[in-house]
Amino acid sequence: MMSETVWRTSITQIKPNEVRLRGYRIDELMGRTSFSDAIYLAILGELPSKNVSRMIEAILVSSIDHGATPPSALAARTAASTGAPLNAAVACGLLSINRHHGGAIEDCVAMLDSALNSEDRTTSALADVADELLASYQQQKKRIPGLGHRLHTEDPRTEKLFALAEELGLAGKAVGLLLALQAVLAAKGKPLPINVDGAIGAILFDLGVPSALANAFFFIARLPGLVAQVYEEQSREKPMRRIHPTAHEYDGTDPRSLDD
Amino acid sequence: MMSETVWRTSITQIKPNEVRLRGYRIDELMGRTSFSDAIYLAILGELPSKNVSRMIEAILVSSIDHGATPPSALAARTAASTGAPLNAAVACGLLSINRHHGGAIEDCVAMLDSALNSEDRTTSALADVADELLASYQQQKKRIPGLGHRLHTEDPRTEKLFALAEELGLAGKAVGLLLALQAVLAAKGKPLPINVDGAIGAILFDLGVPSALANAFFFIARLPGLVAQVYEEQSREKPMRRIHPTAHEYDGTDPRSLDD
Amino acid sequence: MMSETVWRTSITQIKPNEVRLRGYRIDELMGRTSFSDAIYLAILGELPSKNVSRMIEAILVSSIDHGATPPSALAARTAASTGAPLNAAVACGLLSINRHHGGAIEDCVAMLDSALNSEDRTTSALADVADELLASYQQQKKRIPGLGHRLHTEDPRTEKLFALAEELGLAGKAVGLLLALQAVLAAKGKPLPINVDGAIGAILFDLGVPSALANAFFFIARLPGLVAQVYEEQSREKPMRRIHPTAHEYDGTDPRSLDD
Amino acid sequence: MMSETVWRTSITQIKPNEVRLRGYRIDELMGRTSFSDAIYLAILGELPSKNVSRMIEAILVSSIDHGATPPSALAARTAASTGAPLNAAVACGLLSINRHHGGAIEDCVAMLDSALNSEDRTTSALADVADELLASYQQQKKRIPGLGHRLHTEDPRTEKLFALAEELGLAGKAVGLLLALQAVLAAKGKPLPINVDGAIGAILFDLGVPSALANAFFFIARLPGLVAQVYEEQSREKPMRRIHPTAHEYDGTDPRSLDD
Repeated sequence: MMSETVWRTSITQIKPNEVRLRGYRIDELMGRTSFSDAIYLAILGELPSKNVSRMIEAILVSSIDHGATPPSALAARTAASTGAPLNAAVACGLLSINRHHGGAIEDCVAMLDSALNSEDRTTSALADVADELLASYQQQKKRIPGLGHRLHTEDPRTEKLFALAEELGLAGKAVGLLLALQAVLAAKGKPLPINVDGAIGAILFDLGVPSALANAFFFIARLPGLVAQVYEEQSREKPMRRIHPTAHEYDGTDPRSLDD
Repeated sequence: MMSETVWRTSITQIKPNEVRLRGYRIDELMGRTSFSDAIYLAILGELPSKNVSRMIEAILVSSIDHGATPPSALAARTAASTGAPLNAAVACGLLSINRHHGGAIEDCVAMLDSALNSEDRTTSALADVADELLASYQQQKKRIPGLGHRLHTEDPRTEKLFALAEELGLAGKAVGLLLALQAVLAAKGKPLPINVDGAIGAILFDLGVPSALANAFFFIARLPGLVAQVYEEQSREKPMRRIHPTAHEYDGTDPRSLDD
Repeated sequence: MMSETVWRTSITQIKPNEVRLRGYRIDELMGRTSFSDAIYLAILGELPSKNVSRMIEAILVSSIDHGATPPSALAARTAASTGAPLNAAVACGLLSINRHHGGAIEDCVAMLDSALNSEDRTTSALADVADELLASYQQQKKRIPGLGHRLHTEDPRTEKLFALAEELGLAGKAVGLLLALQAVLAAKGKPLPINVDGAIGAILFDLGVPSALANAFFFIARLPGLVAQVYEEQSREKPMRRIHPTAHEYDGTDPRSLDD
Repeated sequence: MMSETVWRTSITQIKPNEVRLRGYRIDELMGRTSFSDAIYLAILGELPSKNVSRMIEAILVSSIDHGATPPSALAARTAASTGAPLNAAVACGLLSINRHHGGAIEDCVAMLDSALNSEDRTTSALADVADELLASYQQQKKRIPGLGHRLHTEDPRTEKLFALAEELGLAGKAVGLLLALQAVLAAKGKPLPINVDGAIGAILFDLGVPSALANAFFFIARLPGLVAQVYEEQSREKPMRRIHPTAHEYDGTDPRSLDD
């Protein structure tokens, strides 16, 4: 009953007075490597190139918070309002990041993967792939993941991410296909923004990140936002209040710029 | 029944095609601000100074993973082993970061706060405060938070953090008091390492981070490690295996250096 | 590294083809013991007496659901709305049962324990204890746990629980003290209902249930309600809807009675 | 922004001083209805018949605990060991009930549903359906859900559940098909026990419980067991111990019987 096989792990090596993440001494990484690069290293096993590093950093910043209306923020605040400790309230937020919230990243990666790697495809021109894909989704009456937003008609995060991907030479077939899909729809009189989930999904796909991990970049990014939401609920509101999902106003710092 | 008061939030302002975090346009932050700085901004409301930025970055890197034996990693792997989705397995890890794991940061901050801000104190010399504190903990038969480690006799993360805090001019009374506590104990023949929780707690205290948020820096840092642990469990192990808490071996990348 | 001490458990004994809960064969309990009795046995180690059995059964029924406005229901529905699996959505509800929701049971037990077992008390007449307790809470400007309800002026669950406790000969000092507290307040022109948390707390205290377990009876009772709330959300509503915390209407089965 | 549509719920109706679950006054149900019946009512909308009531009660008792080795117990204990509050530790257990642990119920219901309701089937004799099903699973190299157990060669819970279902006239096609599958395998020299997940799945299917809710009966049943496991961990063990997944011994009450 006690003779289990020893199991193996390739993430972190612990010895007395020595901790190595993916081979690197953690105290060497500290002070020389950004947290964003360390995230990439921990999850994917290698440090990113300089350009990939900048891209990942921007992706993580893009998703850090989106205000108090997303369900992850509301679930976390609701738990906090009952007296949940910080980590438990934040866990409720994390448990509320699924297919319909954040999960569009994974769905979008899956769609791009299937469209770009399918052997049945009869063409390789992205515009034609986009046409085929659109027809297939319309036939199944399914929404294309990554397109459309409840509020934004041009998502500022998408534009910045795609501009950076272009500038850093990282935009590949997936970014191209998503843009082609958008163009085909616009030509049909249905202009839709590429949302931030779609943009992140396409870029992570072009970077070769496994689809099962694509969503992790979203929820790692969002965790600090959830901490901020929960801490604000704890420090500013009374317990057990009715939390209206949309009727709130911003009363924080005035608009400012890094160049101010 | 429908007339609730509108509530207020000061974190993120959302308008059509505009997202502002603590006043800054998110698309301005993207590409110019590190994820670590954005975390600080989201949680504390202001961007860190250049030196604080380097310090926070190093703190977050220091805690990103500590192998497969911490209970947060084991709880997350156990859930993953039953078929839990990535976010739910990681949530189990997050729910396992409490007073006895990660929570030493908060306890350490509370101890330092009480010792350094107490009006009853009869002296202000740190060595004397350390003596008083030690006597009080011994009388209550309580362990001093932040000192001691199951494995490391000199925690490499602590040394690096304190060296950086010194170099960046950020080490204050709290770091001093923790070092004084260590010295008093060593003089009594009880040499104990300052563990990474203690080091982070002391530095965050000297930076003025509220104690209720000190732990958040730990679990934000550890989340990517939990993702890596869960993903490895999902991709490498069979479901429902017996997960021995210590009998595992590292078989990852060989030791390497940023200077290689 | 592999030589840990064997640890011990006194809950369930598993042998090939035999499962014993607290000494009883599980297949003997099945068909002869109610689920409620088995809950009591699992948690407290012994089967309840016939009267205690009826009391526990009524306590569990009393708290099975309280509609869609409690934060546990809203957090669970919010997670479900994003596509969370049933267990994860229900877990969000469970994580939202804390000091301010459900937790009044534990606070009430703690108050009753301290009032009834204190050696400082100068009197043993319940009315006098109630006076002392009230004065102490007013001095500390704290609300008395277990009294008051947002909606009910006479909580029908409390009345039934107290009537049953009386009928079954199980109402003891704690029930008496809570009623005395209510009477003192009413005499001062502040009539407040004893809420269901208070009633359950007092009865569990009189039954000798440890305060750390009192809350468990509430959340075990509420779990099926959370399942019903999540399943209704999944089967009746669109994903990602805005869930208003109070603006909902009941459209279920018309009022009916067991005697119909 | 504030004009959302009012939404609807059919579970519980709340008015001042009146709470109705699926149409019944909760204070009428208290004292007259068992917790098990109230669970059935809350989730499925109607009170069970007398025989169904006995069946559900036995199903819930059968799954209340299975010792300290299931991953849900280990995850809950691991969280508890770090200082998690009771509800958070139990939530970790709940999050560890998935496809490979407890989830066999849902998989089994899905298999039975597909086999019994398929229009492609060429025969309706259960033995022939079993043959077809077996061939199909072997071809796909998949394990048949509901058959086999790590420890038990004849699961005592299954035998009792099937005996009760027979006695109460509730065993239908699904129970028959599972027994037929077992017989076919035994005839081929592969005797496998029907495990408790399979037995519960078949019976719930024959009772008409929707497959999406089948698992809920398992985790509602297991919750009190998780409470017992966590409470034992909190009251009996030191924080942060290494929890060996199998090396524990039972030291509780000696074997006893309801007839003692």
